[in-house]
Amino acid sequence: MELSQVQTFLAQDWSCFQDLFKKALSSDEPLLKETNAYLASNEGKMLRPMLSLLVSRACGNVTDESIRVAAASELLHNATLLHDDVLDQSASRRGVPTVMSLLGSKASVLAGDFWLVKAVETILDCRRHSKELLRMFSGTVSDLVEGEMLQMEKAGKADTSLMDYHDIIFLKTASLFKTICSAAALTAGASSRIENALMNFGIQLGMAFQIKDDILDYDGDALGKPVGTDLREGKITLPLLKALEKQEPRKQASIRRMVYEIPQKDGNVAKVADFVKENDGTALAAVTLQEYVQRAKECLGPLPESQAKDWLMKLADYCEYRTI
Amino acid sequence: MELSQVQTFLAQDWSCFQDLFKKALSSDEPLLKETNAYLASNEGKMLRPMLSLLVSRACGNVTDESIRVAAASELLHNATLLHDDVLDQSASRRGVPTVMSLLGSKASVLAGDFWLVKAVETILDCRRHSKELLRMFSGTVSDLVEGEMLQMEKAGKADTSLMDYHDIIFLKTASLFKTICSAAALTAGASSRIENALMNFGIQLGMAFQIKDDILDYDGDALGKPVGTDLREGKITLPLLKALEKQEPRKQASIRRMVYEIPQKDGNVAKVADFVKENDGTALAAVTLQEYVQRAKECLGPLPESQAKDWLMKLADYCEYRTI
Repeated sequence: MELSQVQTFLAQDWSCFQDLFKKALSSDEPLLKETNAYLASNEGKMLRPMLSLLVSRACGNVTDESIRVAAASELLHNATLLHDDVLDQSASRRGVPTVMSLLGSKASVLAGDFWLVKAVETILDCRRHSKELLRMFSGTVSDLVEGEMLQMEKAGKADTSLMDYHDIIFLKTASLFKTICSAAALTAGASSRIENALMNFGIQLGMAFQIKDDILDYDGDALGKPVGTDLREGKITLPLLKALEKQEPRKQASIRRMVYEIPQKDGNVAKVADFVKENDGTALAAVTLQEYVQRAKECLGPLPESQAKDWLMKLADYCEYRTI
Repeated sequence: MELSQVQTFLAQDWSCFQDLFKKALSSDEPLLKETNAYLASNEGKMLRPMLSLLVSRACGNVTDESIRVAAASELLHNATLLHDDVLDQSASRRGVPTVMSLLGSKASVLAGDFWLVKAVETILDCRRHSKELLRMFSGTVSDLVEGEMLQMEKAGKADTSLMDYHDIIFLKTASLFKTICSAAALTAGASSRIENALMNFGIQLGMAFQIKDDILDYDGDALGKPVGTDLREGKITLPLLKALEKQEPRKQASIRRMVYEIPQKDGNVAKVADFVKENDGTALAAVTLQEYVQRAKECLGPLPESQAKDWLMKLADYCEYRTI
């Protein structure tokens, strides 16, 4: 599956989303205009608005509010990327220089704040359910912050456990997927049974998506950022955790010490990456990934058959097989 | 007037505000807990919630929503300070080290996001007017971002005009004062005539407050941050603009060039500060300040006499005479 096929399937709904998304970002301030235009011209996968609109379609009803949820999800996602780039001092993303590297961290923090508040305003303009929807999205922003904070804290000590890892990826990725799916179902007038099923689908899909990201960070430079970025930042992710699992406690401690020393010893990055390779870390992580994808698809059980449902199934598979 | 007297006057309303403010910041995440506790123990003037509650009182009715507006205003203000500290790479604020210098810019960006979303949630929980109030506050966040962006852009070129300066201080300071006063009046059930008068009061007061800040940056180190900070960041504020006003174009250009070169020539800071002193820049800026304070007080005309109104008058005077 190509993601562009989903856009074709979504047809008119996709153009409505795009119009609203672009409109939300208009500003008269020259520097903000420049920043927003740059970001809009380097759009990412747009996976979140696709997910959002597919869920509403699968519930049988794309409303004006559904379009707003799709736009808010992409606005919020980009806001967090702008702040992440500052946090991680990233020079490139999606294969092009980040706003931070081009215009400085000031512009990146401020533009992130702007996009965040535009997400709030986009939801605020919903005629129905705006309070409920805002509550979902604001809960997710709290989760994102807590997830990043937890990851930061753990990275400083190199003591991330498997349980910490699952907490972190839920908070920093799956929480938004969960909110998108619940919100999109709500705007389509789904029953609470269906909304609940889709909320769970969102969680499983989000976990899968992040695990795949973490695998790709070991496997290739296709994400437009250099391999081993996470490791370089002291982040211990699933491939390393899986490689560690089979080791004696003494070996585990020595590898964790190597990660801990990365800020002083850059050469440790390659050593730890080799350790992950020798111990099949990414293959083992891929087994967990498959389990999440499988569970995501099972969550779709209660939905009536439809083309949109088929696309959601394919989207779950995409999270497993994507190479970028 | 001491600000603590306002707290005494506000009595029960002030404790309700404090309870809500503290509750909004609770988190289980250890690093976020630490950050929030540190900030709560180094509170600033708390001018914004005082203003908010005095306005509601002056309208005759402090509701649950009024308390929420007071808490949201302080949450939002602190969120922007957290991001400002990253933008300006500030090592200290309120006489103590910033979160940024203690815990790094990551923690400061993330905690700012957290406080911002807590402001949104605090308003979202209003039983009445929540959409209208959220619209006011989100409009102000857009203003804050545009103001900072404009200031940044102008600082890079050292070409801030008097008109740019007024635009910048409206966007980065007076917009929030305006929103606080309108919102506080709305929650108290004020008539649109009174709400409008208070909105204008907020604008004048906010302009005055920022001008005083800019004067203090030349006049003393009482703000808990070193003198000449603005200049060091290339920011041209009212005292310098007033000192420039009387000069020949050639002299103006040479002083602006000096400001432009500050990143390379640190010695220029003292030279420009001397120029401001020799040309009575702060005294001239104080005249403009007085005019804003006067206009602010006139805006209160339509309000019925009350103790709260008297305190608002004193608050306007405070903006003129404060030394910290």
